[in-house]
Amino acid sequence: MKTMNIFKEGSFSEKAMKKLLVHDSPYFRIINFNFKAGQELPIHSHELEGELSIQVLEGKGEYLAADKTLPAETGDILVCDIAEPHGIRATTDMRVLVTIAPPL
Amino acid sequence: MKTMNIFKEGSFSEKAMKKLLVHDSPYFRIINFNFKAGQELPIHSHELEGELSIQVLEGKGEYLAADKTLPAETGDILVCDIAEPHGIRATTDMRVLVTIAPPL
Repeated sequence: MKTMNIFKEGSFSEKAMKKLLVHDSPYFRIINFNFKAGQELPIHSHELEGELSIQVLEGKGEYLAADKTLPAETGDILVCDIAEPHGIRATTDMRVLVTIAPPL
Repeated sequence: MKTMNIFKEGSFSEKAMKKLLVHDSPYFRIINFNFKAGQELPIHSHELEGELSIQVLEGKGEYLAADKTLPAETGDILVCDIAEPHGIRATTDMRVLVTIAPPL
């Protein structure tokens, strides 16, 4: 059992999004991404079994999908297959939590 | 691919904590729990393989463990085995997200 405060430990950088590995195990990987306004996790996918969630903990932006974008506001969660193209772009400074099961 | 806003869809009740199933699949189950101040998810465990995370999206309380409590504030995340005793108690109104991998 372990705890972490993502708001205190996750940092931002003007240069590029910052990534904080929260947890990694055979069951799931949990990663915190912090974006300054305008930064993004570019759309990508992996040809693997499994699913992931992308949660907006703070701030605002949009989810990136193959053929569209979807609003991404505080409290939003997206769930998709790891094999589906996905990404996120920040409009304001933004904290996001990604959970991947099983990990890549 | 699907999205949901937990802050808009998750409700509270004076009678007992409210539970919203966000997602369920062979890979993970995601559940939103909403507590009025004083409500709790009592300490429990299951003799199963796997892990879970308990995230505080909003509000304040404490995580319940076998022999102790731990602070649970906005931005906190706890990760533990499904087989380890775990629970959470709200001090203020509180929104929590639980991810279980693999699901029970």
